[in-house]
Amino acid sequence: MSVLVSGSIALDNVKTQKAAKDNLLGGSASYAAIASSFFSPTGICGVVGHDFPEEHLNLLKSRDINLEGIEFSAGETFRWTGEYMEDMNDRETLEVALNVLESWQPAVSDCQKESVSINLLANAHPANQHAVADQVEGKASFNIADTMDLWIQISRPELEGLLKKIDLLVLNDSEAKLMMDTSNLIAAGKQLREMGPKYVIVKKGEHGAMLFGDGEFFTCPAFPLNEVFDPTGAGDSFIGGFAGYLAQLGKSEFSFSDLASAMARGTIVASYACESFSTEKLQDLTHEEFNQRLETFRSYCSFS
Amino acid sequence: MSVLVSGSIALDNVKTQKAAKDNLLGGSASYAAIASSFFSPTGICGVVGHDFPEEHLNLLKSRDINLEGIEFSAGETFRWTGEYMEDMNDRETLEVALNVLESWQPAVSDCQKESVSINLLANAHPANQHAVADQVEGKASFNIADTMDLWIQISRPELEGLLKKIDLLVLNDSEAKLMMDTSNLIAAGKQLREMGPKYVIVKKGEHGAMLFGDGEFFTCPAFPLNEVFDPTGAGDSFIGGFAGYLAQLGKSEFSFSDLASAMARGTIVASYACESFSTEKLQDLTHEEFNQRLETFRSYCSFS
Repeated sequence: MSVLVSGSIALDNVKTQKAAKDNLLGGSASYAAIASSFFSPTGICGVVGHDFPEEHLNLLKSRDINLEGIEFSAGETFRWTGEYMEDMNDRETLEVALNVLESWQPAVSDCQKESVSINLLANAHPANQHAVADQVEGKASFNIADTMDLWIQISRPELEGLLKKIDLLVLNDSEAKLMMDTSNLIAAGKQLREMGPKYVIVKKGEHGAMLFGDGEFFTCPAFPLNEVFDPTGAGDSFIGGFAGYLAQLGKSEFSFSDLASAMARGTIVASYACESFSTEKLQDLTHEEFNQRLETFRSYCSFS
Repeated sequence: MSVLVSGSIALDNVKTQKAAKDNLLGGSASYAAIASSFFSPTGICGVVGHDFPEEHLNLLKSRDINLEGIEFSAGETFRWTGEYMEDMNDRETLEVALNVLESWQPAVSDCQKESVSINLLANAHPANQHAVADQVEGKASFNIADTMDLWIQISRPELEGLLKKIDLLVLNDSEAKLMMDTSNLIAAGKQLREMGPKYVIVKKGEHGAMLFGDGEFFTCPAFPLNEVFDPTGAGDSFIGGFAGYLAQLGKSEFSFSDLASAMARGTIVASYACESFSTEKLQDLTHEEFNQRLETFRSYCSFS
């Protein structure tokens, strides 16, 4: 195992203007772990309830994801219910039931600790992210944390503390602006680096993502999709693919250029996440399809 | 002269949260012609009033822009007054006075007709764009038209007719969505091509621009700016720089890759337009500065 992904494991009820499906595998860690496992051995740390379907567990197992960090709790699994509008950028959260996530105390297994090289703290409460970071301290060569608007609003001190422990922060454009209280994304990215992480990735959905380093910058467009079926988990898949690709490089230190390459891979993985409910498209992705889309993407970004 | 730019010539009163200035040189044709003249001999076709300052005319002359297509009218110059909010993406138009633009009958000079290779119909009423297109018919090897939401709303039949006469349509993301009644920009770009133009460019402001061709696609990020001083005319400068660069190639036909290269040049030119009021930064731009920023931009977009 090379990538340890911790975060939420959810059951999602998703409605779009074209279709609806309940009890889908969701959550930041599920998407990220499945994306990461496309490239590298991956472990997952999270919590599920008694209602968590066997088929979802089997899917994770089928990708050789190490499940030792999953707590099987007596309560009900974290559940998110949401609806996408005609404009897929507009989504309404209809219901959030934290359930077993509320009292989750992350426990990374010894085996997971020993084999982690990339530690991906997928979106979760900063207290949970701290707990995992502390358990793998000194073990991983690269630590990544994702976050969201809610934690910026209600857990800012814990989040700021976390920024001192990680190498890379990843967040959405609106979250970067919120956190740095500026409307300029470039300024926000630069300022976020000053809070601790050596690198910052600002995700912009259909507009791609930007990487900020020490005097270095990379901008990565999104892969163009004529139709977005369900964008849930695209950002988690992006960073999961990013982490998995980094681990595959087998290095103990990464250059800025390595991170840029990883963003391109994460972008392609994320594009597949948008083409179906849950991880349906992602889990069937072949390396041949992936490589073909990556080369197409390269041609879409090239100019002389 | 290689590029003929027609469109509005304006006096702008611009207010940002940091500064304000009146009687600035503005208008789609002014920005585009100054940007184009950075690369290639350029002519302009438009109308100004008796109040149009000598210094603005002198600026155009200083760049060797052919002014024979400018009508000097007895009325007052077209004037736009606007204010940018803290978020530079939000701007409020406080006043628009069409003045001499209202009865403008574009007249391209014989000299301009004979030397045009790229015909850039910068944003103007589609009737004016038709008039210029008809006057240079068969003369230019490449015809480009820009447009805006207002014309899509009130002059759609004329605009649709224009799409049959041009090689490339350029418009903003919100305008592309409005025109094709879809929230998916990729779908909008593809559908716009079906209305006539061989190529479509969708501009996305701080997120760059996308080029759609026949089964071909190119996505160009914006140059990252830590601070945007005044984005007025950035889109016009982009397409002006694009046209000027194309003309500089000295070809009678352009490949998709030529257009992609031109977009990168337009992007750099547009970034300078955002760094000052009016064309102040653009007009002082040296080829050394430009080339340096282009190389920086190239590194910002590269991945292996």
